[in-house]
Amino acid sequence: MEETQIILSKREIPRQWYNIQADLKSPLAPPLHPATNQPVTMGDMERMFPANMLEQEMGTKRWFDIPEEVLEILALWRPTPLIRARRLEQALGTPAQIWYKYEGVSPSGSHKTNTSVAQAWFNKQAGTKRLATETGAGQWGSALAFGCNVFGLECQVYMVNVSYHQKPYRRSVMHLYGASVVSSPSDRTEFGRRILAEDPDCPGSLGIAISEAIEDTMTHPHTKYALGSVLNHVALHQTVVGLETREQFKRAGVTPDVLLGCAGGGSNFAGFSFPFAAEKIAGERKCRIVAVEPAACPTLTKGEYRYDFGDTAGMTPLMKMHTLGHDFMPPGIHAGGLRYHGMSPLVSALLADGIIEAQAVLQHDVFESAVMFARAEGIIPAPESAHAIRAAISEAIRARNENRPEVIAFCLSGHGFLDLGAYDAYFSGKIENIEHAPAAGTAV
Amino acid sequence: MEETQIILSKREIPRQWYNIQADLKSPLAPPLHPATNQPVTMGDMERMFPANMLEQEMGTKRWFDIPEEVLEILALWRPTPLIRARRLEQALGTPAQIWYKYEGVSPSGSHKTNTSVAQAWFNKQAGTKRLATETGAGQWGSALAFGCNVFGLECQVYMVNVSYHQKPYRRSVMHLYGASVVSSPSDRTEFGRRILAEDPDCPGSLGIAISEAIEDTMTHPHTKYALGSVLNHVALHQTVVGLETREQFKRAGVTPDVLLGCAGGGSNFAGFSFPFAAEKIAGERKCRIVAVEPAACPTLTKGEYRYDFGDTAGMTPLMKMHTLGHDFMPPGIHAGGLRYHGMSPLVSALLADGIIEAQAVLQHDVFESAVMFARAEGIIPAPESAHAIRAAISEAIRARNENRPEVIAFCLSGHGFLDLGAYDAYFSGKIENIEHAPAAGTAV
Repeated sequence: MEETQIILSKREIPRQWYNIQADLKSPLAPPLHPATNQPVTMGDMERMFPANMLEQEMGTKRWFDIPEEVLEILALWRPTPLIRARRLEQALGTPAQIWYKYEGVSPSGSHKTNTSVAQAWFNKQAGTKRLATETGAGQWGSALAFGCNVFGLECQVYMVNVSYHQKPYRRSVMHLYGASVVSSPSDRTEFGRRILAEDPDCPGSLGIAISEAIEDTMTHPHTKYALGSVLNHVALHQTVVGLETREQFKRAGVTPDVLLGCAGGGSNFAGFSFPFAAEKIAGERKCRIVAVEPAACPTLTKGEYRYDFGDTAGMTPLMKMHTLGHDFMPPGIHAGGLRYHGMSPLVSALLADGIIEAQAVLQHDVFESAVMFARAEGIIPAPESAHAIRAAISEAIRARNENRPEVIAFCLSGHGFLDLGAYDAYFSGKIENIEHAPAAGTAV
Repeated sequence: MEETQIILSKREIPRQWYNIQADLKSPLAPPLHPATNQPVTMGDMERMFPANMLEQEMGTKRWFDIPEEVLEILALWRPTPLIRARRLEQALGTPAQIWYKYEGVSPSGSHKTNTSVAQAWFNKQAGTKRLATETGAGQWGSALAFGCNVFGLECQVYMVNVSYHQKPYRRSVMHLYGASVVSSPSDRTEFGRRILAEDPDCPGSLGIAISEAIEDTMTHPHTKYALGSVLNHVALHQTVVGLETREQFKRAGVTPDVLLGCAGGGSNFAGFSFPFAAEKIAGERKCRIVAVEPAACPTLTKGEYRYDFGDTAGMTPLMKMHTLGHDFMPPGIHAGGLRYHGMSPLVSALLADGIIEAQAVLQHDVFESAVMFARAEGIIPAPESAHAIRAAISEAIRARNENRPEVIAFCLSGHGFLDLGAYDAYFSGKIENIEHAPAAGTAV
């Protein structure tokens, strides 16, 4: 029996997170205070995040030790497997090798738990009693609910309205881990009430839910805010994914030619690819690194690279990133986790520096590829993760046409057991290819 | 970092299935033809099952080679991990070790795929074009859908009405793998129409759905019947679970004192425990082996050990087994996979021979334990599998009270991502402890 999975032992879980800020060609543009347009200080950030996480967000130290208590929890499911998709290769008749790093084995079913556990721990150490957050498809909300459950924090989740109704089982998971969940926009915040007054049926967006979670944080004692993507410390916590993958490829004696990850806020893409990007920056590795986004919310491929707010209400610091504009309302596609107007400033910088590429894929095509993958490999992917599958299949077909035995690797960031309603919609012909048409005059 | 998971390599997937019929104290009582009350012949069975599987069902050969094509598919998720539940031990403050074999990593999320792939392959070899089956909670239906998808067979599933409506996402999984699914009782069979005429709202049962699948088989060309539990060849295919577990404990240098598995038809319990039971029969191992069933459907603890039909209509051969009577209608508990009036004849024989024990647990207690397990270990268990968790926690508490550092092992046969509606019911106080009260005059 050929070894089609590369498994590391518990002793091989990375002991440190990798901070790519140490190796960027030029320093990251600083976030700006929304009131003063001056770079935010650590003091400004402390109202939102615990002080012990700010160096991870704003510093250029290359390696951060992972606390022992965090490692113990990560060890419940890490290291995750690196798997060769042999049957998918055969179905495609490609000479390429297709490998995927599978993060769906975590408690909440996605990579998000890698950072939620860390964030809950640092907050616990700092005396935080309660975390407020937003969630799109619910992956992040369930992950934070689990992290808070482990370290005994309260957890308040604002869940984007359209997903709240599309994905009731994600709510169930959050409840199971002890969190409280409301549909966003909600009547629990000033901002939410204002939006509901204008549009009682507003489908919500990540930008709105972030605004509500921030307002909740500012108006409740002992409460901090937690974000599941976009920010630098989140990308940092996710690098365990790429560090393991790099070691696993070394173990397999295989060198990837192209690395693919889906990108909404950018966290799984960052975690998977940054350890490889670092070597590419240093001139020690040649490979393509591609962020894959929905054509309906094409932040990297059609957005502008400029300062913008992270939320809809304009309460966050301004960050330099690719953005479709903080008032952009993405269509209600079935990959709720990718419906975000902005992008991780680190991912944005790497795109601007030419270290990574970006491509946009269409929703119906994504589900077609997801079903092909599930039937070949058994695993039902989350619609978000399936964006990477779509791109991997396209690369494998290109390799077939060019008759090149390339090595294609992607991050399968989560399973789709809680997204089956979307597959039902696909099979009943209700999933359309939606493409974002930029407004006239928008620079693209 | 302590090694809390024992992982085998692909090369260590068992190459043979173990047939406990070779080692029983006395031969299994033969199944009887429902019309003649004489032992059924291989010829009788061939209308239902492919000839190449009958030796597995009716023979006493100890080992059967696993076909290479079946191994290749099993290798998509096997070997499965054996995991030490350290955080659960700590939460209970027990000196006992708690280990679990996790079968939820398979495509359909449970152990059922171990046999569905094998059955689909043997049928394919025998020229079968289409398989008909029943499913309770949907675990078996999804597993067979996957098996049929892999080897290109059509798949028709009769899904017990109450689960059909409680678990829509299980239907989605079956559709995704290309199967056709109807609610049972259905209007597609004579038997189903008769029941619907009497009771249009009949919640259905496994016994009824089996009758429909058999009638479908008898009335369609190139169609065979597939069963996900109870029968000997199913138990045989599941022994990969216990064979791996035995090897993993050896690798860990640990000897289990008690082995626990939930039991509905008996297949995961059989697969997990038979390799250990074999050594117990041979006097080479001392350990308790316990089948755990719902108090609402207490086949082993309150049923009679006698010949009975496997289905409600009386179309199957009579099998000697523990039974609550083939017309028993189990209450609509949330562990649909355990709502079966009968039990694997092999499991029944081992109970009668004193090799294994049985115990019944209450539904509300089961969910309480499931939530405790999920919060400690991260994994959300299927309600069926949680019966074994409940029993494991009781054993761990007993070990604490007796201050004995015992080793407790159970089979976590599946995850509960598609059963979250049941958890919602639990949290909203709608899960009651239901106990079966045997009718007056029933021998128990």
